[in-house]
Amino acid sequence: MSNFIEALQKQYPEKNHLEPFVSANHHTPWLNDITQKHERKLCASLEDAIRKSGLKDGMTVSFHHHFREGDKVINRVMDTLAQMGFKNLTLASSSLMSCNAPLIEHIRNGVVTRIFTSGMRGKLADAISHGLMKEPVQIHSHGGRVHLLQSGELKIDLAFLGVPCSDEFGNANGTVGKSRCGSLGYAMVDAEFAHKVVLLTESLVPFPNMPASIVQDQVDYIVQVDEVGDPAKISVGAARVTSNPRELLIARSAADVIEHSGYFKSGFSIQTGSGAASTACTRFLEDRMQQQNIVARFALGGITGSIVDLHEKGLIETLLDTQCFDAGATASLAKNPQHVEISTNVYANPTGKAACCDQLDVVILSALEIDLDFNVNVITGSDGVMRGASGGHCDVATAANLTIVVAPLIRSRIPTVVRQVTTCVTPGESVDVLVTDHGIAVNPARPEVAERLQQAGLNVMSMEALYQRATALVGEPRAIAFHDRIVGVIRYRDGSVIDVVRQVKEDNE
Amino acid sequence: MSNFIEALQKQYPEKNHLEPFVSANHHTPWLNDITQKHERKLCASLEDAIRKSGLKDGMTVSFHHHFREGDKVINRVMDTLAQMGFKNLTLASSSLMSCNAPLIEHIRNGVVTRIFTSGMRGKLADAISHGLMKEPVQIHSHGGRVHLLQSGELKIDLAFLGVPCSDEFGNANGTVGKSRCGSLGYAMVDAEFAHKVVLLTESLVPFPNMPASIVQDQVDYIVQVDEVGDPAKISVGAARVTSNPRELLIARSAADVIEHSGYFKSGFSIQTGSGAASTACTRFLEDRMQQQNIVARFALGGITGSIVDLHEKGLIETLLDTQCFDAGATASLAKNPQHVEISTNVYANPTGKAACCDQLDVVILSALEIDLDFNVNVITGSDGVMRGASGGHCDVATAANLTIVVAPLIRSRIPTVVRQVTTCVTPGESVDVLVTDHGIAVNPARPEVAERLQQAGLNVMSMEALYQRATALVGEPRAIAFHDRIVGVIRYRDGSVIDVVRQVKEDNE
Repeated sequence: MSNFIEALQKQYPEKNHLEPFVSANHHTPWLNDITQKHERKLCASLEDAIRKSGLKDGMTVSFHHHFREGDKVINRVMDTLAQMGFKNLTLASSSLMSCNAPLIEHIRNGVVTRIFTSGMRGKLADAISHGLMKEPVQIHSHGGRVHLLQSGELKIDLAFLGVPCSDEFGNANGTVGKSRCGSLGYAMVDAEFAHKVVLLTESLVPFPNMPASIVQDQVDYIVQVDEVGDPAKISVGAARVTSNPRELLIARSAADVIEHSGYFKSGFSIQTGSGAASTACTRFLEDRMQQQNIVARFALGGITGSIVDLHEKGLIETLLDTQCFDAGATASLAKNPQHVEISTNVYANPTGKAACCDQLDVVILSALEIDLDFNVNVITGSDGVMRGASGGHCDVATAANLTIVVAPLIRSRIPTVVRQVTTCVTPGESVDVLVTDHGIAVNPARPEVAERLQQAGLNVMSMEALYQRATALVGEPRAIAFHDRIVGVIRYRDGSVIDVVRQVKEDNE
Repeated sequence: MSNFIEALQKQYPEKNHLEPFVSANHHTPWLNDITQKHERKLCASLEDAIRKSGLKDGMTVSFHHHFREGDKVINRVMDTLAQMGFKNLTLASSSLMSCNAPLIEHIRNGVVTRIFTSGMRGKLADAISHGLMKEPVQIHSHGGRVHLLQSGELKIDLAFLGVPCSDEFGNANGTVGKSRCGSLGYAMVDAEFAHKVVLLTESLVPFPNMPASIVQDQVDYIVQVDEVGDPAKISVGAARVTSNPRELLIARSAADVIEHSGYFKSGFSIQTGSGAASTACTRFLEDRMQQQNIVARFALGGITGSIVDLHEKGLIETLLDTQCFDAGATASLAKNPQHVEISTNVYANPTGKAACCDQLDVVILSALEIDLDFNVNVITGSDGVMRGASGGHCDVATAANLTIVVAPLIRSRIPTVVRQVTTCVTPGESVDVLVTDHGIAVNPARPEVAERLQQAGLNVMSMEALYQRATALVGEPRAIAFHDRIVGVIRYRDGSVIDVVRQVKEDNE
């Protein structure tokens, strides 16, 4: 054999890097062992997987938040990493919830020193807002997270991805098994970009578990665990079905806006997100779609049972799903062929080759605050403490043809419409219409939309008028007292810094 | 706004690389233009797409061969590149066929100077075997091609991927439209690894064309063309359905071997490839599966209508499909949820995180020659001229638990069993059983298999005895006269060089 290699190198010296064949499995030794062939990814324990991964102090670990308040992976893995003595880790979760309060200890003990997340809630958010961390948290949007991964600013060394089922090669989905979260849209991105991937799976099913959301060529290690999440808690704090009269009023008003905006025609597309009013809006749209014989081409983003309902009635042709907000959505993803799972890369990455949100006609988004310039805050509360998430807000706001923000004018005697938002997450230039329970404001950049709504007899007011009404009712809110110190950096979807969050002073409380 | 950026940089100097927000669409300017938003990938012509791609002399262009002898993309694109004056290109097609004879002119004129392919046939193969190219052709396996891409030896600058349908963002599949090729398993790899991707599509369908085989975040440019291929010619030279008595005899004998090999039980898996005898073998297996109540877990690789037939009868649970060999397979992929399209990366990449072929029990493969050490030649004919393809041969041979090669002992008075193969593509250590029309030989490394077959009363002989019978019938073949000059390099799946092909002398003809 060496004979032809010598001839090759003599005739084509530039091919000198080519190596001669050694044996059939020289580079695939596991094929020589019938057990290794099948089980080389299976780990006896989480610790075993972490050891094999080569994780070191200072590296970056990642998680998805599909189980939202029911997640049982993030805390467990971080506890294990702490017990194993890891320090100085960067935690990059697609988002963090109230259930992640145990992370406070790991931050205090130096296990976690940097965080990338879409948002935060509860005690963890409170502690960070009060100065828990030495480095500010990086708050990104869903599309912006993929941009940070693509640009290399965020490099995931080891992703821990909880799934209800996987086969021994790592083909996994979120629709089969005990604890089903439905779409794995966030996890798909980590599987694509992480250097190494550990699957934590509740069940090991026979190969081939296909079609798969996370595919075998993305998975390094597999650990079977008792549970990865409680699906019943996915909708906590997110996709409530409301019977609140004020929210229903806003929802109906948003449906009026859509109907008369100029975008309500067959083939239109919509994203409703998870807010109570925006979810309720879906129900009001249904009647109008039936009456006017309008079928939507697609619905995008986080999918709820009420959107599935329209799909199954033939009113929305396709659902493009990054995240299932309830059991109805999960069940639909498992059975409806035109309910399609997409990654947040395909959903909203601003610097990818295409983002689905660029095709969107209408989106309904929520707000904690919105100001006279239509800038939106979805991250800090009226006390300056973080209590929300960037999510897909700024991604979809700028991409959609008609961006509607829905919010009550006043919450617990605090105005939603303010002179200037405490924290700007989505720039006002991306927001077209604000729908409140006291009236509708249209961005002056969209006079044609204002005209259509006025002609339809809707209660269109100026933002200034809404602001005046709010302050007339409850007065100017007391200014929040902040330290100078920055505890959070709000990254716009393209990676730029659109705002910062400062440490709150105790006396706000 | 500059205020908080200054504060951020003062408090955290290591964050100096962060840029301040400019405007919502600063990095996504197409969102400011309703036409650009939808049509930024659409090109008026192939030339337009090529110009926009930035292709330069010396770069690498790639293609898939799903349409096999019916392909209408490779020649058209190479003609266009030649007309545009490109020179010194590397052509990396997943394979090349007889229909690609027009490439000869482009090689003569210096448009193409290097080729990577799984195989070659017809006039092109003949010309290259006779010394057409200055550099030897690199012959790789399907899995080996992905390895070369992953290792960086093969870098695709621009992939030209023909598809029957795509939307304006590049979501494409092979199952909808006029000229359907079914699975896009080869194309999916190019879409993943190429720096830039041009889709040539017969039809532009509304967004979202999902689920998609090639996804929008992999596609740069889209050109609508009249036709990309003739599906009727996919099965030419590949997946014939045979009525040849000798092929049927071999097929029945292969079914006997499988039945008694020890691997024929419920949950087994199989790959039959596209050869006439191996395809026919499927039919003989059906009866035995029915009688013994055996259901296979999956069939892998190139899928034929006869495999689909077993799937639809409930005898094979899942089909993992890299390539549809006929219209029956294409129709099934479009409608059967457990007929799943996989890329050649997931299929057989030896250095990926997992290859489906590693799960395979039984594979039936063909051979042009097989020698006393069970080495197999599937690339050069008895005249030393290239006329075949490496395909998935060596990938699956080493991965499967039972590798069966089927071949007639003698073809046109030339023995198939030889003392030493002209060209070694698959090493003998990977081959377990040879089935011919004159008897069965079992690799001495698998005595337990030989024993089972002998106990079942099958006609097991030594390879030497088969060789003696062949030469007794037709004599020793005349040695092929070669020049020293190397015209082809046979790359094993791990990238190593397992053999070379030398230029044939004219007097062989």
